[in-house]
Amino acid sequence: MASNRENRNIPEGAEPSRRDLANAIRALAMDAVQAANSGHPGAPMGMADIAEVLWNDYLSHNPANPRWINRDRFVLSNGHGSMLLYALSHLSGYSLGMDEIRNFRQLSSRTAGHPEYEPEIGIETTTGPLGQGLTNAVGMALAEKVLAAQFNQPGHDIVDHRTWVFLGDGCLMEGISHEACSLAGTLKLGKLVCFYDDNGISIDGEVEGWFTDDTPARFEAYGWYVERAVDGHDPAALQAAVDNAVASGKPSLICCRTIIGFGSPNKQGTEATHGAPLGDAEIAATREALGWPYAPFQVPANIYAGWDAHAKGAATEAAWNERFAAYQLAFPELAAELTRRMSGDLPTGWSAAATAAIAEMAASDAKVATRKASQIALNAFAPHLPELIGGSADLTGSNLTEHAASKWITGDAANGNYVSFGVREFGMAAMLNGMTLHGGFIAYGGTFLTFSDYARNALRMAALMKVQSILVFTHDSIGLGEDGPTHQPVEHVASLRLMPNMAVWRPCDTTETAVAWRYAIERRDGPTSLILSRQGLPAQQRSADQLLGIERGAYVLVDVPDPQAIIIATGSEVEIAVAAAVALAAEGIAVRVVSMPCAEVFDAQDTAYRDAVLPAAIDKRVAVEAGVTDGWYRYVGLQGRVIGLDRFGESAPAGELFKKFGFTAENVKAVVQQLL
Amino acid sequence: MASNRENRNIPEGAEPSRRDLANAIRALAMDAVQAANSGHPGAPMGMADIAEVLWNDYLSHNPANPRWINRDRFVLSNGHGSMLLYALSHLSGYSLGMDEIRNFRQLSSRTAGHPEYEPEIGIETTTGPLGQGLTNAVGMALAEKVLAAQFNQPGHDIVDHRTWVFLGDGCLMEGISHEACSLAGTLKLGKLVCFYDDNGISIDGEVEGWFTDDTPARFEAYGWYVERAVDGHDPAALQAAVDNAVASGKPSLICCRTIIGFGSPNKQGTEATHGAPLGDAEIAATREALGWPYAPFQVPANIYAGWDAHAKGAATEAAWNERFAAYQLAFPELAAELTRRMSGDLPTGWSAAATAAIAEMAASDAKVATRKASQIALNAFAPHLPELIGGSADLTGSNLTEHAASKWITGDAANGNYVSFGVREFGMAAMLNGMTLHGGFIAYGGTFLTFSDYARNALRMAALMKVQSILVFTHDSIGLGEDGPTHQPVEHVASLRLMPNMAVWRPCDTTETAVAWRYAIERRDGPTSLILSRQGLPAQQRSADQLLGIERGAYVLVDVPDPQAIIIATGSEVEIAVAAAVALAAEGIAVRVVSMPCAEVFDAQDTAYRDAVLPAAIDKRVAVEAGVTDGWYRYVGLQGRVIGLDRFGESAPAGELFKKFGFTAENVKAVVQQLL
Repeated sequence: MASNRENRNIPEGAEPSRRDLANAIRALAMDAVQAANSGHPGAPMGMADIAEVLWNDYLSHNPANPRWINRDRFVLSNGHGSMLLYALSHLSGYSLGMDEIRNFRQLSSRTAGHPEYEPEIGIETTTGPLGQGLTNAVGMALAEKVLAAQFNQPGHDIVDHRTWVFLGDGCLMEGISHEACSLAGTLKLGKLVCFYDDNGISIDGEVEGWFTDDTPARFEAYGWYVERAVDGHDPAALQAAVDNAVASGKPSLICCRTIIGFGSPNKQGTEATHGAPLGDAEIAATREALGWPYAPFQVPANIYAGWDAHAKGAATEAAWNERFAAYQLAFPELAAELTRRMSGDLPTGWSAAATAAIAEMAASDAKVATRKASQIALNAFAPHLPELIGGSADLTGSNLTEHAASKWITGDAANGNYVSFGVREFGMAAMLNGMTLHGGFIAYGGTFLTFSDYARNALRMAALMKVQSILVFTHDSIGLGEDGPTHQPVEHVASLRLMPNMAVWRPCDTTETAVAWRYAIERRDGPTSLILSRQGLPAQQRSADQLLGIERGAYVLVDVPDPQAIIIATGSEVEIAVAAAVALAAEGIAVRVVSMPCAEVFDAQDTAYRDAVLPAAIDKRVAVEAGVTDGWYRYVGLQGRVIGLDRFGESAPAGELFKKFGFTAENVKAVVQQLL
Repeated sequence: MASNRENRNIPEGAEPSRRDLANAIRALAMDAVQAANSGHPGAPMGMADIAEVLWNDYLSHNPANPRWINRDRFVLSNGHGSMLLYALSHLSGYSLGMDEIRNFRQLSSRTAGHPEYEPEIGIETTTGPLGQGLTNAVGMALAEKVLAAQFNQPGHDIVDHRTWVFLGDGCLMEGISHEACSLAGTLKLGKLVCFYDDNGISIDGEVEGWFTDDTPARFEAYGWYVERAVDGHDPAALQAAVDNAVASGKPSLICCRTIIGFGSPNKQGTEATHGAPLGDAEIAATREALGWPYAPFQVPANIYAGWDAHAKGAATEAAWNERFAAYQLAFPELAAELTRRMSGDLPTGWSAAATAAIAEMAASDAKVATRKASQIALNAFAPHLPELIGGSADLTGSNLTEHAASKWITGDAANGNYVSFGVREFGMAAMLNGMTLHGGFIAYGGTFLTFSDYARNALRMAALMKVQSILVFTHDSIGLGEDGPTHQPVEHVASLRLMPNMAVWRPCDTTETAVAWRYAIERRDGPTSLILSRQGLPAQQRSADQLLGIERGAYVLVDVPDPQAIIIATGSEVEIAVAAAVALAAEGIAVRVVSMPCAEVFDAQDTAYRDAVLPAAIDKRVAVEAGVTDGWYRYVGLQGRVIGLDRFGESAPAGELFKKFGFTAENVKAVVQQLL
């Protein structure tokens, strides 16, 4: 760790006070922000005392083994205060060197403007978009509770850790905090403890102009334990509050009265400290006021010693390792399974089982809505995947997210694998991220595709963090019919495809749906959106090669010698494209049909494969998808045609809408003919 | 209204009971859902008694003049219960005939699956996406309060009406309900009264499994008046509750215990009534149980008479007209201005003032961030637009949404034009929709572009309803620099462009920004997103023709004889495109630069103009935009190139990121050269 400890020239002093320890955070925060000439010193300086108490007295972790599975999770939901987390990581002994602190907010540093998921240095989730860190933490606490229910045995509390959250006014104003905390109360997530940085200030100034909630009463209404008006700069008061929170057995909110930018004599307590450097003069004054005589990025050895979490962390983990050894002895299979689950490896036999199940589905010629096909796939796959956990945002019967092996989780009975998230799409999606980040689970959640809008930034966060969350988005187009334009996605499929690292699958039948599910389950480096129809779709028949083609994102579904044109289609429009090709063939016009269930996966194939599916020489191309057209021009070019829907839908039976908007074999055929 | 009153053959009976009146709603709802074989009978049947009391005893409206400016606003936030609203509209005498009720959920009917904004028949906003109707209503109530503060005079309460909301568990679970209701409490919207359909059921079943909030306590924590556990089937209890709510002077929540699907003997009180037809047998049983002997879509005359709101509505409006006449006499200018504001006409002289202001800005050569240019435009335009009201989701100093004439609105002082919405992006956007729907305002709101995700479905609702809401989205690309990928939009501009009827402007300098603002202000049939840079951008010099070209969405900014290639750019990349063209010209390569601040507006130009800007003959095309590339292929084709960013950004100074990701004149020049 020597590289982590500069400035050994600073003489060791007496035992530092708690305030001295906290001031190390303050100094690093104000100096790093100043050096970067950008950032947020206010929150780290205001929450430094809270952080010092939590990390030194309560947090169960081991900087030498940051991925220890039973570690406490710590989430900085007010992610703009990133320097707080970097300072804690550095000071307590993670592999985050002072060079990284000095490089705060610089290209390729590990100390980005907002914390970016990197458990190696104690960053359990990426935060910044307010309210989502808190919600990730609710997901983590749920994961811990469910995993404990699945694995712990009498006398063997092998999964047993807490989730701690720092949050600010911003998180509490965001709607997602309501969704997450309401559900946390219902699910009785008693190991979740949140510290509210009640500093009375947000970017626009004193929050009383726009935030007058009685926050303690609000959280009590959720069934939480609340500590009111704790002095956030008094370690003893904080300890008492944490002890009470832990003893309460409920999710807890500790409301800490703090002074934003604590220590800055002329700016503390004002929004001036929130999101801008203090300036050299004020930093000097703050050093003076805090009694912190050290140069920027200098931390004396006694301060490092006061923070060093290695010894305690090693002892804590060693004690758990002993318990785990006993568990292993008593329940060897469970122990092996827990180890496997936490490693993220799929079960032995998964691959063969999935292949067999898909082969069976491929042999069926039933007409099935792909949302139903998704349930068929879940029924086939779930028995092989105890790590699968999922649910719906109050649309279980519509999303068909429940399967034969589903067992509903409640606050009093967590040994299950199904969560009814309530009408909380954003909360659900951010909780999926948290469950996945915790480890031990593959998490999915369902809602109507149109309400992916509500969850959108959580999907983005999954993509950014490379988290596996699986989204089951049903009712995927005007094909949902009578519910009308508020519920009919038009721009959503295209819009999800724009999100870097989001895999968007829009399968055309049961087989493609099952392959999409398999992809989503096997993908460990990003989220997958499964875009599913409400209405029934016919089974397409495929050769073995074509079956393998699905996995490549796009493949030739209807081939003909010397095609004059190509129709590219997805999901419910594949059936129409095939019918159009058949009708064209009857007139002697040779047209290839390409089914493209996942453009992202297809784009990642080698050039040879892509050229084989879409040969450059065939530039007469028509794309068909019941949604906006913009994204298709990269496949059909300026000379091609896109049959899509660049307007909102209408409330009417689906069949009438498909006719009205030109999603018929006749129209596709006519457009191809115009092109030739 | 005869056409509205079928079945005169039903004999007039005695004075109908309140329950009889309510049963008319129940019968229409269950019969229409049955006829459509789709829809939601449960909520209309459960809330029928509440609706009957509200509409017959309290609602101040006039079906003969649905747009009467001082009418009460009624919002059905649980929009899936649309048949409730259609039944109320029909029964009380709006121009919604029984033929429309019979055509529930059919193509081109006015009775869509979810209510679609149509004030002529009493539909004040489109609802269905849960929580948003409630939030629209908060915006309406705020509009009423501000308008009253601006126009009322002692003894002349000329703007004085209530906003009434029906909502269900779903609305209360959604996060946006927290954002809106928290702010409604802070802003003391005392004329907002909400009825909570507390029926204990949501789609997944009994809500106690996923929704255990103490909702009354939650709303009291927001500073609301709450009536607990009112019997939603007892008119006297409801009247008492409404009277208390109105007297409280606070935003109010009346929690009504109801039975979902009330009257259905075998299904009431269960989720079976929520979203599916009851079935013929159960409908027959319900008729029997309710004592409603009439055939489907038959309403006896005495029931129509009991509902008819014409006489009362005419009297109510006449009384107000008298008051308005007195106001007009005492304050003729205010009266004329109120009339103008509510009509949606812009002030006389606006156009000339805007033209002059833009000409002045066009003459400046200052380097200005377009967020700052937006503030300059606001400073120039706002003095001419008393209807302009706006704010920010706690980013006032970053979004630069405050202008010289801004006056902050508080709960106790509503005579202003600036709202600090707090960290509530979704709530803000849906409130903008509500304020605009109310009338009398042009409403704008600011946040970082990346957080347009949080607000996304409210933007969609604005687009769907053709509501004018103006969104000020700053920090529009990796150009924001150090805040990093959580805050750096990559897919957002492209994604907003996918939304039908959303105008997306990404101006390149002060002049384009001012033209974009003018467009947003003058557009009355849809929302506009203004996409603005954090960083400074140079002023481009333009001829008079080029200045006019901005209004056409795209125009030739750098022209050359016989161009060999075209570079298309937007926003901060225009500067780079121009520099590349200059560098290419120095090497004898003639390249045109097209600035395309608004693709949607450009696409709507006639073919001749579009061909003149982007001649088909020039197929060597390069698009440059610091965001995802997908959408650009429709302009550059398969043979063109797009210089964009199909990955997430990084935390670093903006200049370094632009270099790293190829947004430099050198790279653009090189790509053009490769193409030639």
